[in-house]
Amino acid sequence: MANPIKVGIVGASGYTGAELLRLISAHPQAEIIGVTSRQYAGQPVSSVFEHLYDVCALEFSAPEQTDLTACDVVFFATPHGVCMREAPALIDAGVRVIDFSGDFRLKDAAVFTQWYGIEHTAQDLLKEAVYGLPELYREEIKSARLIANPGCYPTAVQLGFKPLLEAGLVRGDQLIADVKSGISGAGRGAKVDNLFAEMEGNFKAYAASGHRHQPEIEQGLSDIAGQEVYCTFVPHLLPMIRGIEATLYAPLADVEADIYECFKAAYADEPFVRVLDSGAHPQTRHVRGTNCVQIGVHRSVDQRTAIISVVEDNLIKGAAGQAVQSMNLMFGCDETAGLLEVAHLP
Amino acid sequence: MANPIKVGIVGASGYTGAELLRLISAHPQAEIIGVTSRQYAGQPVSSVFEHLYDVCALEFSAPEQTDLTACDVVFFATPHGVCMREAPALIDAGVRVIDFSGDFRLKDAAVFTQWYGIEHTAQDLLKEAVYGLPELYREEIKSARLIANPGCYPTAVQLGFKPLLEAGLVRGDQLIADVKSGISGAGRGAKVDNLFAEMEGNFKAYAASGHRHQPEIEQGLSDIAGQEVYCTFVPHLLPMIRGIEATLYAPLADVEADIYECFKAAYADEPFVRVLDSGAHPQTRHVRGTNCVQIGVHRSVDQRTAIISVVEDNLIKGAAGQAVQSMNLMFGCDETAGLLEVAHLP
Amino acid sequence: MANPIKVGIVGASGYTGAELLRLISAHPQAEIIGVTSRQYAGQPVSSVFEHLYDVCALEFSAPEQTDLTACDVVFFATPHGVCMREAPALIDAGVRVIDFSGDFRLKDAAVFTQWYGIEHTAQDLLKEAVYGLPELYREEIKSARLIANPGCYPTAVQLGFKPLLEAGLVRGDQLIADVKSGISGAGRGAKVDNLFAEMEGNFKAYAASGHRHQPEIEQGLSDIAGQEVYCTFVPHLLPMIRGIEATLYAPLADVEADIYECFKAAYADEPFVRVLDSGAHPQTRHVRGTNCVQIGVHRSVDQRTAIISVVEDNLIKGAAGQAVQSMNLMFGCDETAGLLEVAHLP
Amino acid sequence: MANPIKVGIVGASGYTGAELLRLISAHPQAEIIGVTSRQYAGQPVSSVFEHLYDVCALEFSAPEQTDLTACDVVFFATPHGVCMREAPALIDAGVRVIDFSGDFRLKDAAVFTQWYGIEHTAQDLLKEAVYGLPELYREEIKSARLIANPGCYPTAVQLGFKPLLEAGLVRGDQLIADVKSGISGAGRGAKVDNLFAEMEGNFKAYAASGHRHQPEIEQGLSDIAGQEVYCTFVPHLLPMIRGIEATLYAPLADVEADIYECFKAAYADEPFVRVLDSGAHPQTRHVRGTNCVQIGVHRSVDQRTAIISVVEDNLIKGAAGQAVQSMNLMFGCDETAGLLEVAHLP
Repeated sequence: MANPIKVGIVGASGYTGAELLRLISAHPQAEIIGVTSRQYAGQPVSSVFEHLYDVCALEFSAPEQTDLTACDVVFFATPHGVCMREAPALIDAGVRVIDFSGDFRLKDAAVFTQWYGIEHTAQDLLKEAVYGLPELYREEIKSARLIANPGCYPTAVQLGFKPLLEAGLVRGDQLIADVKSGISGAGRGAKVDNLFAEMEGNFKAYAASGHRHQPEIEQGLSDIAGQEVYCTFVPHLLPMIRGIEATLYAPLADVEADIYECFKAAYADEPFVRVLDSGAHPQTRHVRGTNCVQIGVHRSVDQRTAIISVVEDNLIKGAAGQAVQSMNLMFGCDETAGLLEVAHLP
Repeated sequence: MANPIKVGIVGASGYTGAELLRLISAHPQAEIIGVTSRQYAGQPVSSVFEHLYDVCALEFSAPEQTDLTACDVVFFATPHGVCMREAPALIDAGVRVIDFSGDFRLKDAAVFTQWYGIEHTAQDLLKEAVYGLPELYREEIKSARLIANPGCYPTAVQLGFKPLLEAGLVRGDQLIADVKSGISGAGRGAKVDNLFAEMEGNFKAYAASGHRHQPEIEQGLSDIAGQEVYCTFVPHLLPMIRGIEATLYAPLADVEADIYECFKAAYADEPFVRVLDSGAHPQTRHVRGTNCVQIGVHRSVDQRTAIISVVEDNLIKGAAGQAVQSMNLMFGCDETAGLLEVAHLP
Repeated sequence: MANPIKVGIVGASGYTGAELLRLISAHPQAEIIGVTSRQYAGQPVSSVFEHLYDVCALEFSAPEQTDLTACDVVFFATPHGVCMREAPALIDAGVRVIDFSGDFRLKDAAVFTQWYGIEHTAQDLLKEAVYGLPELYREEIKSARLIANPGCYPTAVQLGFKPLLEAGLVRGDQLIADVKSGISGAGRGAKVDNLFAEMEGNFKAYAASGHRHQPEIEQGLSDIAGQEVYCTFVPHLLPMIRGIEATLYAPLADVEADIYECFKAAYADEPFVRVLDSGAHPQTRHVRGTNCVQIGVHRSVDQRTAIISVVEDNLIKGAAGQAVQSMNLMFGCDETAGLLEVAHLP
Repeated sequence: MANPIKVGIVGASGYTGAELLRLISAHPQAEIIGVTSRQYAGQPVSSVFEHLYDVCALEFSAPEQTDLTACDVVFFATPHGVCMREAPALIDAGVRVIDFSGDFRLKDAAVFTQWYGIEHTAQDLLKEAVYGLPELYREEIKSARLIANPGCYPTAVQLGFKPLLEAGLVRGDQLIADVKSGISGAGRGAKVDNLFAEMEGNFKAYAASGHRHQPEIEQGLSDIAGQEVYCTFVPHLLPMIRGIEATLYAPLADVEADIYECFKAAYADEPFVRVLDSGAHPQTRHVRGTNCVQIGVHRSVDQRTAIISVVEDNLIKGAAGQAVQSMNLMFGCDETAGLLEVAHLP
C-alpha cells in the first residue's frame, strides 16, 4: 500500500492489544511500526500471540526505549493513568492518540478522581479529547487529536438508549441497564477468579453497587438527551469468552409511540448497527468477531416499558474494532476498512 | 426404611424427571414404585439415565398400563395439559399429586387459557391446588392434596422480591426482573436451537415481549403484596447447563429503609435461603446441585433502587428439589430430608 | 470481479454448508449463483444463517427445481448417496464437482458398501475422482472433474503420518491415531446426544470398534507408504464447537532418525501446514477459523515411538476450507485465495 | 457419631483440598479437627470455599502453629517436598498419613529425583509407604501408616490395563495411554494458561515428551505384570473442569482372547469400578462428582489391539475420593462410606 498509516501500540500484551494487532495487521491502509510491552520486551509478538505468526513479524519493545513520534497514530492499550502521562508529548509531536483506558472519557476531572482514585494530570487534553463513539460523534472524531475510546459496556448501553432519548420517547430518570459480558472483558491478568475452573458453568453479577462505567454511561446518556439522565447499571460475567448483551429497560413517556420505527430510522445509515426484524432477539454469536452491533426492540407485556436488547463483541465494537473505526475516520479511510469480517458460525 | 412414602413419577424422561429420580432414590423416607414414560416404556431407567445405574433398578412403563393408585404421592413431570386430565382420578383414589407443569399454577382459568392456549378441564381442583413455594405457603402445603410446583423463574423472582413487598419498602408498579437460565431449563427435546454447537459461547434474551411465567410472577407478587403488582420479566439463556440468576430492580418507596436487614430478618429461619454478607454477589455455582437459594442485596449508585441478585439451581430449587421439599412437608418428614447435598466445586 | 467462478452449493443447510457460504461469499474470484436446501427452500439464506445477513442475499431453492448446469463448480454438502446420484449429469454438462460426502473417497466399491451400507451407483466416476488433499494430490486436483473432499479426521491423520511414511522412518503395521473433535463435526441435526445439556463438561470416545473414516485413513496411508499400512483409529467428542486434535503414535523403524527435520523439510513449502518449534504442542484455538494445520513433533520417553500432535479446524481445513483450496487449484487461482483469515484470540 | 476418626488436612487451599473438605464433612464416621493453609491462615474455610458454608465451620490455621498430633490421620494436599519433610514426626507420634503429592509414589529414590528435581529426605518411609490404589493394594492399605495416594492419570491407566496385564493377554512393551483431563487437574494457581479465556473452546496435548506420571505408570504396570512394562503416555487438557478419559491401546498377545470377559471377571466385586456393556463407551459426566470408574472394552478393526476407554473424576477417584477410600480401609469403615453420591445429570 502507498503511504500507509503508521501505527504504534503501547501495552499490547492484553486481549485488546491482541485484537488490535490482528485488525491492524490485516488493515488495507495501515501498518504497525512499533509495539511496546514492559512484560514481553524483546520477544516476538508471535511468541506471545501465536495465532499472529503469519501476519506480524514485529518484536515487543520496552516502552521507555521506544520512540513513537514517527507514528501517525498511537493506540494506548494500557491501564488507567498511563495515557494521561504519555499522550501530551506525543500530541505535541504531531501524533494522534487513541486511548482505550478511562483517562479521557469523563469530562469532569473530579468525577474521574472519584471513580478511578487518582488525580487527572492532563486536564487540558481532557477538555479536547473526543469520545470515540462514531454513531454519536462522527464529525468530531474526524479531526480529533485525542480519542477516548469508549468502554465496552457504555458502547452497548448508549447505542441502545440513543434513539429513544433523542426522540424523547422515554423518561430519563429511571433507566435500567442489565448487562452481561464474556470473561475476556476481565483481561488477561493471572487471577484465580478468572480461571477456567472458577468460571465455567458459572454466572454472577458483580459491582452491583457501583462500577466505573456508571459515570461514563450517565455522562453519555445525558449528553444524548440534552438533560440529566440517570441509569442503574449492573454488570454480570458470562461463562464464555466474547460478547456483551445489554438488556435495557426504559419507561415510555408516550405509550403510543412506535419505538421500532424510531430505531429503524435512527440507524438506517449506520454501517455497523443493525436493527433486527420486529420481535427478534439478537444473539452474541451473530456479532462475534465483528464490529457490528445488533439490536432487538421489544415492549413489556403491559406496554409501558421499552425493552431493548443490544449485542456486540466486547473486544471489537467494544474495544479494538471501534478504535479502528475511529482511526478510519481520522485518516480519511472508508469507515469500514479492515472491519468487514463476518462472524464464524457455528 | 419402615413404611416409606410410595412415590410414582409420570413422564420421567426429561431433565426434571431425571433429577427427581435421583433425589427420591437417595431419600431416606421415600421409595419409587412406578415410573412412566411413553417414549421409553419397557426400558430400564438406567439405560436412559446411566448415572442412576447403581441406585434405580426400575423400568419405565407405559402410562396407560400403569396403575399408580397404590402410590402415596405422584409427581407429574409432563407437558402442560396432562396433569389436569389425570390428576382428578388419582386424587379421588386418595393419592396426593405434585405437578411440575403450569396446569395448576394460575388461579384464573381464563388467564391460563390466554397463556397456554388450552381450556382448563379441572377448574375445581384449580381452586384447591396449593402453590408449592414453601417459603410462602408452608402450612397450606402440609395438608394439600394437589401441589402446583412453581416455575423455575418465578421461584427466584418471588423469593427475591418477597421481603421488600411484605415490608412495603418498594413501589409495586415498576418492578423489573432480568433473569438468566442455564439451558437445561429448555428441556431434553431434540431441537436445533439447543444443540451444543448453537449455544456454546452464545447468549441471548428470548420471549422479551411475553413469557408464560409472566402471569405466574404477577399473581405471586400481587399475593405477597396484598395488592396488584406489575413486574417486567425478561428471560435469557446462558451457555451453561444449570443455574438461574435473577437480577431484580425495585424503586424504593423509602430511600432510608435498611433493605439488608429486611432480607436478613425475612429469611433468618429458612433452611434453604441464605442472604449473603452485605455487598456480596451470589454465584450460580455455589448452589449448583443443591436446593439452596442465595441472595445478594444491593442498592443503585443513586440509592433510589433496590438491586437484588438471586441464584438457584433451576432443576432443583427451581423444579425437582422444591417438589421434594413440598413432599417432605406433606408427609411429615424433616423439610430438608434428602436435600442436604452440598455443591461440588470447582 | 471479472469472470468470477460461478459456484453452486447443494444441501447448504448444515455447518459445512454455512462455512462454505461464508468462504465463497468473501472469495475474491468466486460467486455463488445457486444454493439448494430441501428443508429451507424459499427462505433467504440469512434467515437460517443470520451471520451472513450482510454478505449473502440469496434464497435457498428446492434441489429438484434448480438447474446448476450454468455453474463452473458445484459443491455437494449432502449426506452419503446424493452426490453419486447427481454428479454424473452435472459432469456430463461440463460442471466440475466437489463432494463433501464419502461417496467418492474409497476407491474400492466393495469397501464403500461395507462401511456405508449402500451400493455404489457411479463406479466409473469413482475411478476418476481425485482425493482432494492438496498436500498429497495437488497436481491431480488441478485438472480434476470430480473431487472427493477428504473427511475431517483423515485430513489430520494423513498429514501427520505423511512425512514419516514417505521417509520410511516408521513401521506401518502398528500405527495409532487417537483423535478428538469438536461437536460441530456431528452436524446440525436435532439429536438429543448433541444437545448442549448432554455435551457441556463431557468427553467420550465413540465408534472405538470401527468408524467410516477407518478405511479412508488406511487407503490414504497405504497410498503414501506405497505398501499396506494399518492404523488403529479412535475418535472422541470434545465439549467445544470447532477443532480437531490428532495424537498419532508410530513405532520408529530407526530410533536414530531425526524426525523433526523430516517434518520441517516435508512441509517447508506448504502454505497451510506449519511445523511448530521443536518441543512445542499445537492448540486447536490457534487454527480456529483458519485453513491451517499445525503440527508438534515429539518422541516417547524411551525414544522408540514418534508422537505427532496435529490440529486443524474441522469445518475449514477439515471440510469447507479444504474444498475451497481445491477449487482454487482447479480454476488457477492463488491456492490461498479467500483462505487467509487469522484465528481470533482469545 | 461415636468416636469419629479425627482428621487433619495440611494445605487445603486447592481444588483437591476443597473436595477433601467436602467429602470428610459429609462422612458418617470422620470429623475434621484441623485444617492448615499458609495463604489463608486465620480465615474461615467458608470464606474461601463458599459452597461449604453450611457444612464446615473451621478456620484455616498456619501450618507451623498447628499441632496435628491429636489426629488419627492427616492428609497432605501440598506440593511435592512438604510431606516427606513433615510426615516422619507425625508418624512417630502415631498419626497415620495420606499424601497426595508425588513424594512417596516412586519406590526408587533416584527415579524420584530425576523427575521431581529434589533429593528424597525420607527414604525409610519411602520403603514403607503403600501405594493407595485399593483395587491393587487393598490389604496393604488397611494396615499402612503412610499412603501415597496415586496420581490422577496413573489411577485411570493402571485400572484400565490391570486385567489385561494380570491375565497376560497383551504384550507389555508397546502400551499406549492417550489421556485427557479436565482443567481442575492443573490446580487453583493463578496462571495465564489456565484462564477461562485461554482454555474455553481449546484443546491441546502437553508434556508429550515426558510427564511426572510416566515413571509412576511404568512402576505400577510393571508391578501388575510381574515384569518390566513400557507405556507411552501423553496427557491432554480438556475444556471442562472435571473428568479424565484414558484411551488405552495394547497389542494383544492372543488375538482369540475374550478380553471383555477378562474385564468383567476382574472387576466383578469392586465397589467403584464398573465395566460397561460390551460395545459401550463411557462418558466422563457419568462419573462426575463420584468415586466411580467406568470402563469400555473394545478391539481395533483388525482385532489385534485392545482399546480400553476408562473414565474417572480426576478430583475424586483421581484424588480426594480415593484417599477417603483408603482412609475407610485403614480405619475399618465400610469401604464406600461417604463415597456414595451419584452423578448429577445433566
